[in-house]
Amino acid sequence: MPDLLVRPIRWERHVLRVLDQRILPLREVYRDCRTAPQVAEAIRSMTLRGAPLIGCAAAYGLALAVRRGGRKALKPAAKLLLASRPTAVNLAHAVDRMVRAAEKFSETELKNGLEKAATDYFEEDLEAGRRMAKFGAALIPRRARILTYCNAGALATAGIGTAVGVIVEAFRQGKVEHVYPCETRPFMQGSRLTLWELMKAGIPSTLITDNMAAHLMKTTRIDAVIVGSDRIAANADVCNKIGTYALAIAARHHGVPFLVAAPLSTVDMNCPHGGKIPIENRDPREVLEVGGRRMAPKGARARHFAFDVTPAGLVSAIVTEAGVVKPASGPGLRRLLKIAPK
Amino acid sequence: MPDLLVRPIRWERHVLRVLDQRILPLREVYRDCRTAPQVAEAIRSMTLRGAPLIGCAAAYGLALAVRRGGRKALKPAAKLLLASRPTAVNLAHAVDRMVRAAEKFSETELKNGLEKAATDYFEEDLEAGRRMAKFGAALIPRRARILTYCNAGALATAGIGTAVGVIVEAFRQGKVEHVYPCETRPFMQGSRLTLWELMKAGIPSTLITDNMAAHLMKTTRIDAVIVGSDRIAANADVCNKIGTYALAIAARHHGVPFLVAAPLSTVDMNCPHGGKIPIENRDPREVLEVGGRRMAPKGARARHFAFDVTPAGLVSAIVTEAGVVKPASGPGLRRLLKIAPK
Repeated sequence: MPDLLVRPIRWERHVLRVLDQRILPLREVYRDCRTAPQVAEAIRSMTLRGAPLIGCAAAYGLALAVRRGGRKALKPAAKLLLASRPTAVNLAHAVDRMVRAAEKFSETELKNGLEKAATDYFEEDLEAGRRMAKFGAALIPRRARILTYCNAGALATAGIGTAVGVIVEAFRQGKVEHVYPCETRPFMQGSRLTLWELMKAGIPSTLITDNMAAHLMKTTRIDAVIVGSDRIAANADVCNKIGTYALAIAARHHGVPFLVAAPLSTVDMNCPHGGKIPIENRDPREVLEVGGRRMAPKGARARHFAFDVTPAGLVSAIVTEAGVVKPASGPGLRRLLKIAPK
Repeated sequence: MPDLLVRPIRWERHVLRVLDQRILPLREVYRDCRTAPQVAEAIRSMTLRGAPLIGCAAAYGLALAVRRGGRKALKPAAKLLLASRPTAVNLAHAVDRMVRAAEKFSETELKNGLEKAATDYFEEDLEAGRRMAKFGAALIPRRARILTYCNAGALATAGIGTAVGVIVEAFRQGKVEHVYPCETRPFMQGSRLTLWELMKAGIPSTLITDNMAAHLMKTTRIDAVIVGSDRIAANADVCNKIGTYALAIAARHHGVPFLVAAPLSTVDMNCPHGGKIPIENRDPREVLEVGGRRMAPKGARARHFAFDVTPAGLVSAIVTEAGVVKPASGPGLRRLLKIAPK
């Protein structure tokens, strides 16, 4: 994988090694997961994050479960992993794939078979990223100045990323002039992770706070906003990191194209619209503190919605490994998924 | 002043004592300023901040200058103070008032006269806050859920604040159900200062990150957004803390009234429109770090626009001590300022 600048998980001799994204970019430390509960905890604590990567980690988590506990360990492990974070549907998608794969294997095949299935899932995500990057780069104009949000990069997937993958590919094609990652409070994925990836790729980048995006759209030329997604409903409403919706409103106000890049494993055809997507409420301390440092007064209350929903009407295009849906629409998604129109 | 919960500056025996807002709410420390350069540095470093308060501090700074150096010290001190921060026009307004007052005093009257003029300026701002609060509270509906931004409270003025003053008065009238202060990156004035003031006043409040405001407007009832201002142009374009513009776009998208509360000293009739307001560029380190802790990779670039401009067309009303301009407009401002229509 010579095109990968960073490897957020590694599968080595039946151990899932997870790059601790909470302490990047200051330190690069891998934490070893040898059991499914350890993988679930790594997902819950955001040691690893990013919807496609969560799916890959869950697949390896189930491989670990059957290696230690055999077939009977599969269901409890699946339940535990599914409960680790509620919003990203890739998690459910991966667990479903693995459970169905397990049904086909005999007892003697099971351990190695599930390990192979997890690696297949990982490699499919990697390949999906490459394909998305090509489809997405075709939408980027020459000398583009691009705004991105949160981290939809190599650290969020098996491969080169979703939104950042598109940016990297467009940069390789000589089309990217400048990228503005938003820092993305409260976890600072933009500041800590996306900027780090962009700098590794040698792409000219300037960090801004989330609240500067609209001002930039008004006062300078921004050619596109591109983000990832944690779940796309059947009507093409897009759930993504909290703050994405505000960015989409600002993009519409300024006539800036708003692009979403996500693998088809992000699409949840069982979810009719964005209002039905469960929005994770995380610990308010993550808002009251910054980088472990208390900011707000003692006894203060806060809310920590981890995601929001951008209505399909504000999304200019959805880029997947099977092609582009432009503008975002339910029928367009069904066409890509080869589901008969309703 | 029994209605004041906090005093951001105190004038005591020819010393300006400045509450250090950079370390609130964790510690309450006053720093003594005995010279105009010390006052200018306190403004530049944001030891004190808030457009009306900067004006008050500058007035006292000039009183300190003539007390030590006589009349000849006035002009250099005025120049130094004017250069301390570029955006808030209240600073220029206060310096202008003091320089003109000085012209009327004889040499023997000068020192005590300028001290009295500074105290008069301070008390006018305090009274302006009380009047603004009454005018503004009349615009707030019963059981209001209000969103506010940055700190336009007691810590930003001589008195009870501008936007927060309106909220406090509406709360006294029994009309406020809940307030959501946005944390306001990068300085966290909402998290550290506004929430602290709201809690002191006993107002039910919940902190959110800046990027959650649009999500809240969509998913819960928000009855008004109310903010302060650092400079209002002659056409009623409103300059305020970076992020205000994004909030105004989101408010318009959701049909939520967007109110600005500011004393008339904030209006700059010499500035035809918002595009002519100088936007302060602060040190990018303030974006790369959070609370002194490094977040971004080594060698990273960032921008730190400290303010943005909200076009008058997005502003539902401007609340001043002389009444309300609704909707925001240049002719409305001229009427309040008793300037003949153009």
